Amino acid sequence: MNEAADRTGNPPGSHMTAEIAEQPQVFAELLGRRRAIGEVAARIAERRPRFVLLAARGSSDHAAVYAKYLIEILLELPAGLVSPSTATLYGARPDLTDVLLLSVSQSGGSPDLLEVTESGRRHGATTVAITNNPGSALNEAAEMSVDIHAGPEQAVAATKSYSATLLALYLLIDAVRGGSGEQAGTIPELAQTALDTSDGAVDEAVQRYRFANGMITTGRGYSSATAAEAALKLAETSYLSARAYSGADLLHGPVAAVDTETAVLALCSSGRGGEAMRPVLDTVHEHGADICVIGSAASEVRAAHRIGVASCAEELAPVLEVLPVQRLALGLALARDVDPDSPRGLHKVTRTR
Amino acid sequence: MNEAADRTGNPPGSHMTAEIAEQPQVFAELLGRRRAIGEVAARIAERRPRFVLLAARGSSDHAAVYAKYLIEILLELPAGLVSPSTATLYGARPDLTDVLLLSVSQSGGSPDLLEVTESGRRHGATTVAITNNPGSALNEAAEMSVDIHAGPEQAVAATKSYSATLLALYLLIDAVRGGSGEQAGTIPELAQTALDTSDGAVDEAVQRYRFANGMITTGRGYSSATAAEAALKLAETSYLSARAYSGADLLHGPVAAVDTETAVLALCSSGRGGEAMRPVLDTVHEHGADICVIGSAASEVRAAHRIGVASCAEELAPVLEVLPVQRLALGLALARDVDPDSPRGLHKVTRTR
Repeated sequence: MNEAADRTGNPPGSHMTAEIAEQPQVFAELLGRRRAIGEVAARIAERRPRFVLLAARGSSDHAAVYAKYLIEILLELPAGLVSPSTATLYGARPDLTDVLLLSVSQSGGSPDLLEVTESGRRHGATTVAITNNPGSALNEAAEMSVDIHAGPEQAVAATKSYSATLLALYLLIDAVRGGSGEQAGTIPELAQTALDTSDGAVDEAVQRYRFANGMITTGRGYSSATAAEAALKLAETSYLSARAYSGADLLHGPVAAVDTETAVLALCSSGRGGEAMRPVLDTVHEHGADICVIGSAASEVRAAHRIGVASCAEELAPVLEVLPVQRLALGLALARDVDPDSPRGLHKVTRTR
Repeated sequence: MNEAADRTGNPPGSHMTAEIAEQPQVFAELLGRRRAIGEVAARIAERRPRFVLLAARGSSDHAAVYAKYLIEILLELPAGLVSPSTATLYGARPDLTDVLLLSVSQSGGSPDLLEVTESGRRHGATTVAITNNPGSALNEAAEMSVDIHAGPEQAVAATKSYSATLLALYLLIDAVRGGSGEQAGTIPELAQTALDTSDGAVDEAVQRYRFANGMITTGRGYSSATAAEAALKLAETSYLSARAYSGADLLHGPVAAVDTETAVLALCSSGRGGEAMRPVLDTVHEHGADICVIGSAASEVRAAHRIGVASCAEELAPVLEVLPVQRLALGLALARDVDPDSPRGLHKVTRTR
């Protein structure tokens, strides 16, 4: 029996299991708050930002990668991820006039993001906090806030707060360009379908990768965010040595280390990102790797194992395709006798500067 | 005997060995071209860019991470890394007025960087190509060019072209703020010292990590670029399952997978980045990991093995600390009977879109 079960009396993974299952409901509630998000978006649009910076750590950093694609593609604005240490360690204070700074943090409690946000606001940026904790210090520091409204999360590994952050970022960015979030309307039902129909394929993947030494995760376009989140989720819950590469970067070097002992988790959803994965997977296949594909285009590429996901607009695919990823991380953790609710050495809020 | 030795008659790793040794001379020649770099910098400064984007792939992407720190800290300008796929896959065409776009590519031959640069130039950016091939298509596409002048590189794994790119970026960015590159004046001698004095410690590290299943590489601040480059170099030459985390990100999740079976390669150079690594290494040490530290502050942190590097201004440390990293990758490759000059499945120019 592991430490967490001793301490709380709950079976290992019970929080993570429950929180994964809550996601369709969380999405439905978030869609019900489109008006509040639209008001923030309208205020952002009035400022006519010319550049967007995203500040985040951990899982939220992957949500920020997703947002970077949305911003560059849907808003046609250049965007970059902040390296908080340039402010916190080196004291850099760039002029941020015309810059929109989105600070993404489920807890709103990271001291480094707080410092970046305070400093950004003082130096001219329009600052927006995206958190699951509307009373947090980060919300205080930012001029505007978006509440992802995912409810309390007990498991240390973020699941519903991650996917809700993605959906909130989509709704916010779509609204900045004048959209009404219409394409996201069916996400709650599609999420329920994705959970209901992927169970068997996820269980088979758990059996297949139970003894894997490590895993490479990969995706292109919007799905590169899911690949990054998958690697983190596997590493923090199952202690699997997982690392993420964009499909393009994988071919620039790391593919040399791919051989018949390598398990590759590839994200392939319908659309341009999924199409661009075909040559990547052909190359990885030539190296003899064992490929597990997750996504709505799973049936269209080379793979040893496939986990299908309901189809949706490509820019929303990361919200759905992460659901079987979370289930896989949970299943592998339990199969490897680890409690994914409280991985060793992790706390819900990591206090880095 | 391996394939490359069969084909060329050269012993495995002979190109990589020679190219590592050439670096002090390459740095000296590059310093002799400060005037040409200064002229490009003066033209950039005249445009008064307000935001900087960096486009790169593979090793050059790590040079871009280094440049991002320089730009944010020395120029106090916000900066971001381009995701080429937003342009190449999704056709995004953001307005890049007031944007400086630095395209970094040793070969100047990546089709995706070419497309990003052409499109950026059409949409208002000041475009600068930083390559080791002044006649390349990328140099044609960009308005201005910086030649890193590292000479031909035979080994597929980039060594001298990586470090020369770092130094060229430093000289360029320092000159944009009106500097003369003075701090870099001693880099050729310091590089020679770093090569001469690290041999023994590198050999011991090769023995120590010969059978490691994988390695986590980590650094903070400027050195996070070296950590990323170290992971790529180890993966592509020794087929080691290596992955990089910024010291801060490591504590946000991946540290859960760190245990007594984990080898950690940490970059610690004198300065704020190295100081900020102390609590990271304390935590990693508590998890029981085997820590190998490389850098001028190696003696100041917890470690099982140390490889010292000559001290210099913190913003130049990545140019020096990568030298023993390259030697370690070379040594591990040879110890594991791999030819680092031509890793399986890699070509000098990777053609991704």
